[in-house]
Amino acid sequence: MQAPFSTLAAFRDFLTDAPKPDSAAIAGAEERNGQLTKPPGALGRLEDLAIWYAGWRGTPQPDIKAPQVVVFAGNHGVCAKAVSAFPPEVTVQMVANFDHGGAAINQLSKAFGARMDVHALSLDVPTADFTEQPAMTEDEFIAALQTGWNAVDPAADLLVTGEMGIGNTTSAAAVAACVLGGDAASWTGRGTGVDDAGLARKTDVVAQGLALHATDDPLEALRCLGGRELAAMAGAIAAARHHSIPVILDGFICCAAAAVLAKLADAALDHCVAGHLSAEGAHRKLLEALGKEPLLDLGLRLGEGSGAVLAIGVLKGAVACHSGMATFAEAGVSDG
Amino acid sequence: MQAPFSTLAAFRDFLTDAPKPDSAAIAGAEERNGQLTKPPGALGRLEDLAIWYAGWRGTPQPDIKAPQVVVFAGNHGVCAKAVSAFPPEVTVQMVANFDHGGAAINQLSKAFGARMDVHALSLDVPTADFTEQPAMTEDEFIAALQTGWNAVDPAADLLVTGEMGIGNTTSAAAVAACVLGGDAASWTGRGTGVDDAGLARKTDVVAQGLALHATDDPLEALRCLGGRELAAMAGAIAAARHHSIPVILDGFICCAAAAVLAKLADAALDHCVAGHLSAEGAHRKLLEALGKEPLLDLGLRLGEGSGAVLAIGVLKGAVACHSGMATFAEAGVSDG
Repeated sequence: MQAPFSTLAAFRDFLTDAPKPDSAAIAGAEERNGQLTKPPGALGRLEDLAIWYAGWRGTPQPDIKAPQVVVFAGNHGVCAKAVSAFPPEVTVQMVANFDHGGAAINQLSKAFGARMDVHALSLDVPTADFTEQPAMTEDEFIAALQTGWNAVDPAADLLVTGEMGIGNTTSAAAVAACVLGGDAASWTGRGTGVDDAGLARKTDVVAQGLALHATDDPLEALRCLGGRELAAMAGAIAAARHHSIPVILDGFICCAAAAVLAKLADAALDHCVAGHLSAEGAHRKLLEALGKEPLLDLGLRLGEGSGAVLAIGVLKGAVACHSGMATFAEAGVSDG
Repeated sequence: MQAPFSTLAAFRDFLTDAPKPDSAAIAGAEERNGQLTKPPGALGRLEDLAIWYAGWRGTPQPDIKAPQVVVFAGNHGVCAKAVSAFPPEVTVQMVANFDHGGAAINQLSKAFGARMDVHALSLDVPTADFTEQPAMTEDEFIAALQTGWNAVDPAADLLVTGEMGIGNTTSAAAVAACVLGGDAASWTGRGTGVDDAGLARKTDVVAQGLALHATDDPLEALRCLGGRELAAMAGAIAAARHHSIPVILDGFICCAAAAVLAKLADAALDHCVAGHLSAEGAHRKLLEALGKEPLLDLGLRLGEGSGAVLAIGVLKGAVACHSGMATFAEAGVSDG
């Protein structure tokens, strides 16, 4: 579907007036949860997850049948400042790897029954080096938001947004710092694995970007310091809200993009859960700022959507229990 | 297959001379892991899991195709001391619920592609009240170990052992305290949800059992303080080792049974990972004693094998990445 916005003002308006969960479905799911053949609360977070999912899907007894994984790829001008352990041509090489089914996200999407789509965003035109000028023009930025929006299948019932882009932990750190506050060092991590000298260089680059593009506007922060794949993730997460599709957030880069939405409207991420805690240094701080408790903590720091897709299993398990279990009355079990 | 032991001495001998993982498969898996299209270590614990799994399956590029979940049910004489929030007839009612597909473990087994078997162990003959006499005779105990052993399908490539038994967190607390040391209060928790008075009563019952059955022999602890389903889990975990089938441990009760094996032989649980951290109070302490880091921490406290089956998803994801990803050379990706 075509994105229903062609200006940033219209995108802002959507977020402040975004759809809410179905309170009748939540009430119905809560009632059902209390009748299932288990001690009260014995399924822990699975119970909350199932009720949350039911609310967004508008039914007290939902299914997960059509999860979608969308991976956005972008190139970053700031790579000229040697912020990554990998050369920038790896972005396009990895997109080919996605297309041939060879990456981690391919295996995980298949393992968890998710459709996977890849969108390479103008890889031959990297964003500008944000230490020198805004990463994107307004037109480029809107186009990336729209690409993200349009990538979401309205018939999906769960969304994971992943990314690939050499240099994008640098952009994500700059966006997070600009949007959430705090200095460059507190948001900059090792990404794919830079050494101490690389980390110092990367932190300095983030600080330069923050000094050049100081702004109170989260969208302006994303335009000046982000990348096309970050903007696309923000657009996709917003589109999922439009279609009442729950989202599992991935790691640091995905959450930095999501933080932009959260700063535009308090409830903008109510349809999202945090899939995992990444090993990227500042991800914990970012999740805390978003008020999201991660479902998994397995030391992943790959991106691509990998941690979030792994968490599809948890959500599927939660919904399977909620919608498939017998009640005490149905099973003839004494309820204590 | 018939259990290859008819005495406790033979069972002990098996554990001290149990099969080891295949070191060539581990070396091959480590080499493969280093060549996959991802930054080194970026898949975190998934990498260790895949290599561990490869070692036990004896191949550097394994698959998970036939996970088996076995749920053992037993009744406990100690229920006469009002240690549970649920009446003892719930055990047999829940077995019927398992047989009809209505329990949480049915939904989870289906969601994660696992075969599920249920073994009800002499539910009409509860174990003796361990505050008065040993829970089981030696013959009863050996029979339960054998039932567990025989329940494991030699063709399975992953095992989860679950349980159902009103009163069995009381037995598990007593077994854990006897085997690992520490007082009754430090091992006794709320189980299905007893109130403060119930918890005090339960703690006192555990203390009485410990006083009556003090022993240095882990098998004697399991016989005197455990239950048939705990003994069967111990037998099944040992059988899995015999067949080189990796095991995902479930919550407090499963781990108490497993602790008996760990005390009989240091390496007895090397083929096991901890599926999750349960909300049952002393599970963390029990996992620490076993030296196992849980894969999930979602506040479950249901038993049945539920948390471990949820962790099948994590392990499947790990193995899918390891065995399905392209190498840098295959994909033509620059490796930094």
